[in-house]
This record gives sequence, structure tokens and C-alpha cells, in this order.
Amino acid sequence: MKVLGHQTLIELYGCNDVKINDSNLVEKTLLEGARIANLTVVNSTLHHFSPIGVSGVVVIEESHIAIHTWPEHGYVALDFFTCNDSYNLKEAIEYIKNTFEAKTSSQKEISRGLV
Amino acid sequence: MKVLGHQTLIELYGCNDVKINDSNLVEKTLLEGARIANLTVVNSTLHHFSPIGVSGVVVIEESHIAIHTWPEHGYVALDFFTCNDSYNLKEAIEYIKNTFEAKTSSQKEISRGLV
Repeated sequence: MKVLGHQTLIELYGCNDVKINDSNLVEKTLLEGARIANLTVVNSTLHHFSPIGVSGVVVIEESHIAIHTWPEHGYVALDFFTCNDSYNLKEAIEYIKNTFEAKTSSQKEISRGLV
Repeated sequence: MKVLGHQTLIELYGCNDVKINDSNLVEKTLLEGARIANLTVVNSTLHHFSPIGVSGVVVIEESHIAIHTWPEHGYVALDFFTCNDSYNLKEAIEYIKNTFEAKTSSQKEISRGLV
């Protein structure tokens, strides 16, 4: 039995509402997170909602990173999907969490594709 | 208590290996799936791996759709992330499943952001 995809779902609560509503900062933070985790960025697309919130994805060689922010609730949903589990996600997640000043967080690992 | 994000993780097994290795077809299929589910596409980015496999994301007004394919295993990981659960994902997932000729599938619903 082999697992093809490794997905990490992260919840960040109590974030700085101004920071998580700034699409440039959110994009910069994800790209730096990718660099820290040693992931290769293919491209990124970030979208600022009207009136509030940021939604975006970084496509990486190893799969993707997705983010959705709800500044009005200080909440960020962050997902890493990678094709193996050898990446340094822990340090990248810590960096993102600190940048957004999250007060609490939780994470869940999901195995995708059992062949 | 309110749930901010609704994530549906879908596993498709036994897919047609030629179809899930065709990035144009994969993109067209996701865009049609988004249309069926009544989701508003912001943009999409698909990436073909060398030598095999497709990885991509469609950013929608309501969040995102992500796909990663492993033609060598006939496997597709498909994710819908939406900001509410009023969308017709069932029909969209059925359409994608049929297009890729998946023999078996399973899905899991995850609530994101409890505030």
C-alpha cells in the first residue's frame, strides 16, 4: 500500500485582521512559506474579495498550497497538498502562523490516494 | 456556532489514464464542473508534469477547486472548497467522475473554521 498525496489542513484563529485582508502580504507570505518548505513554485493566483477577505492558491511542482481568509472572524484556512511527506512543512506553517499573528491553530493530516 | 468553509475531498480510482493525463481536457472538465455547480470562475491554472500527471487549481468566487492526477495509478484527487454548502456539487462531481471514467470513488466532507 502506497499513499500518493499528503494533505495538511491548518486552521488559524485569532489572526491580525488587517494582515489577512492584505492580498499582497498574503501572497508574499505563502511564497516565503513555500521557500522555507523547499517547495518549487509554478505560479500563484490571489484574489481579493469585496469588501473583505483573500482567497488564493500557489501551484507548486509538488502539488499546491491554498488559502482562504475571513478577516471579520480573524480566521484563515490553509492547505498544503504535496506528493510526498519529506518537506519541511512544520517550519513553513510556523512562519505563516507568526506572520498572521494567529493566537490558536490546529492541523489535520489526510492521506490521499491509497494504491 | 457557524462553519465558514465547506471542503469536499473526492478520490477517483480506476480512471482513464489517457484522459487524466490531458491537461486541456482536465481544465475543460473542471470548468464545466464549476458551471454545473453554479460556481463563478475567477481564473484557472493547470500544470502538466513531466513525464506524466496533471496538477491544477480553479480559483472561484466561492473559494477553489483543486485537482491532482496520477495517470500511472488511474487516480485523481479532487477538492472543492466553498464558502457555503448551497452549491450543486453532487451533479458536478458526477460529471467529472463520468468524464474521467472513474470505476470507484469516495468522498469526505470537512468543516473548516468554526466560529
